[in-house]
Amino acid sequence: MQKWTVVDTKIAYQSKYMSVFNDTIKLPNKSIISYARVKLKDFCSVLPITENKKIVMIEIYRYPVNYISLEIPSGYVKQGEKPRDCALRELEEETGYKARRLTSFGWFYPWTRSTRRAHLFIAKNLTEGRQKTEPTEQIKIKLLSIEEARNKLETGKIKHAPTIIALQKFLLTRARAL
Amino acid sequence: MQKWTVVDTKIAYQSKYMSVFNDTIKLPNKSIISYARVKLKDFCSVLPITENKKIVMIEIYRYPVNYISLEIPSGYVKQGEKPRDCALRELEEETGYKARRLTSFGWFYPWTRSTRRAHLFIAKNLTEGRQKTEPTEQIKIKLLSIEEARNKLETGKIKHAPTIIALQKFLLTRARAL
Repeated sequence: MQKWTVVDTKIAYQSKYMSVFNDTIKLPNKSIISYARVKLKDFCSVLPITENKKIVMIEIYRYPVNYISLEIPSGYVKQGEKPRDCALRELEEETGYKARRLTSFGWFYPWTRSTRRAHLFIAKNLTEGRQKTEPTEQIKIKLLSIEEARNKLETGKIKHAPTIIALQKFLLTRARAL
Repeated sequence: MQKWTVVDTKIAYQSKYMSVFNDTIKLPNKSIISYARVKLKDFCSVLPITENKKIVMIEIYRYPVNYISLEIPSGYVKQGEKPRDCALRELEEETGYKARRLTSFGWFYPWTRSTRRAHLFIAKNLTEGRQKTEPTEQIKIKLLSIEEARNKLETGKIKHAPTIIALQKFLLTRARAL
């Protein structure tokens, strides 16, 4: 399969969260097209499991869809930060839990138009602490048994892509993950 | 949990694929913030299964990450189109297969900053035909056994979020899905 050739790139939009580039591309068939490529920060999502085999989830208000979403803790990777440090930081900020064990659980591309990567982790050996949320984060902690989480998935109650991927993977590889 | 109040909204960027709005928001704690909300087209992804229990997947070149991605057929829902019609159309355009049976397989939000929905379907009773790809789509059809697809998932070879979600869900609910 032949790759595309970039002829030109122009920045079309830039903000704190996102840059949009209008790339001029030469396709393998020699025709010239314009392609909007989006730059977004990578993020981490972490599936925390307590000693009692409860999954630590959060209910968070998602403004664009005006909806209270059941998710695992997630957040953007800061400049220069390692994904695993991001996962530990977000876990503590959003839930108060500190993890003594963090295992990589794969990564994926959430959007084909962007280079953004989503890094997944499983957090174990947890100790409870205090949440440090930002004013835009209204977060309620929810401890779910594995069967409760499976039920939420199966009844379509979970809509957050990284949460669905991490939970389904956990259910598929459970014997090894625990 | 209290919802946010929109004080003002301004369009910051608009293109064929995406609109960005800068919303001024009053938070429940009365502070005023700015929030970038993104409008994107909904899309469909469809998991096609042949009579011989092969999963019809595609290899497609993803320019932003310069990578040949193993995915199930997907595409944007056109203005006025129903998600299931989109799924049947994209299946036929990208693989040539027509489906006589299409079952909803749930939906999710691929990005918390956007109202975009991703609709999943399972396609069965397939008949082969001819691909109708666009010049930007270099697509190679790949028929995978269920065990081959499971192996691709487990070894991290699949990076496309809707494909991961649909395949994992299929593996978890397999007895019912077949």
